[in-house]
Amino acid sequence: MADPIDFYFDFSSPYGYFACQRIDGIARKHERDVDWHPFLLGVAFRVTGQSPLPEQPMRGAYALHDFERSARLYRVPFAMPEKFPIPGQVPSRAFYWLHDRNPAQAKDFAKAAYGAYFAKGRDITDVGEVARIAKGVGADADALTAALADDPIKQRLKAEVQAAIERGVFGSPFVIVDGEPFWGADRLDHVEAWLATGGW
Amino acid sequence: MADPIDFYFDFSSPYGYFACQRIDGIARKHERDVDWHPFLLGVAFRVTGQSPLPEQPMRGAYALHDFERSARLYRVPFAMPEKFPIPGQVPSRAFYWLHDRNPAQAKDFAKAAYGAYFAKGRDITDVGEVARIAKGVGADADALTAALADDPIKQRLKAEVQAAIERGVFGSPFVIVDGEPFWGADRLDHVEAWLATGGW
Repeated sequence: MADPIDFYFDFSSPYGYFACQRIDGIARKHERDVDWHPFLLGVAFRVTGQSPLPEQPMRGAYALHDFERSARLYRVPFAMPEKFPIPGQVPSRAFYWLHDRNPAQAKDFAKAAYGAYFAKGRDITDVGEVARIAKGVGADADALTAALADDPIKQRLKAEVQAAIERGVFGSPFVIVDGEPFWGADRLDHVEAWLATGGW
Repeated sequence: MADPIDFYFDFSSPYGYFACQRIDGIARKHERDVDWHPFLLGVAFRVTGQSPLPEQPMRGAYALHDFERSARLYRVPFAMPEKFPIPGQVPSRAFYWLHDRNPAQAKDFAKAAYGAYFAKGRDITDVGEVARIAKGVGADADALTAALADDPIKQRLKAEVQAAIERGVFGSPFVIVDGEPFWGADRLDHVEAWLATGGW
């Protein structure tokens, strides 16, 4: 089996949420696994000089419209959360803690957390909420809650974010296939073509 | 026949160049005409606080890579011009002057000017070059050259750019179908789906 592909996303990114529904299916068709990597778009924005889309004149109003319209097109449950964007530290740290114990469960958690936020408006910056979501996918909520209060998982997320930025990741979603970078949910078709052809 | 769809683009935008190859074909399948509107991304950037992609840390290097890769995927001749981005005033003014006389010829000119710049590296900020391109699609090069030196066509472009921004256009390409806005060459599939279904 060829190398896994890398899928980077921020828990506050609607386009990351849309892409997370499709990325494993696309990879599976081409006999690839996917390594998921939550990271923090806010840290990348400090390098690129960007700000969250909804805060940008003209682009913000368009983005809010496009989120809803894209969700309807992809038939993904979506209701723009009242609090947006949110800092992704808590669910991202939870992901890495779970990942070290059970990678498949960590993906289930990421999908559930994305859905809790973008479909049900739940506050995934809250440790209690994140622990409940983790419990819902079979994880040990008490052990996770304890770990989230500790320093090692905070350092771990910092290192993951730094590694992402050093690889050139600056947006969400961001996919790397055999070193080839693809930015945006609207590049998944190119990702698929790249996997099918081996590149062009 | 339903209303024409509106296609906004900047002559310095590779994604505008890619989209101009497809937009009329997409519209024709759904029995629509397309009104083309060159505008100036630089003026929109002053409203949105953006800068040209290649100047942005991280995003710039990715964009240059994605231009080339997208061109190969779409099989569109492309060679990154040495001088980029360029101010689009001269070809945009030429477009509107031609459009008032012969709309079909204006589209031929726009495609030829885009190709001259993005496939052949020619300097389409130069009035002489633009006049030659216009002559190549059957226009009166001398009359165009004289018009480009006059004030009315400058005021005309200013008014067109202002009108575009007032309609919410902030990127290139930008398509409006029955009031519905779509930003980016990678939204042409959504444009097509919108035309096919009447919206969702």
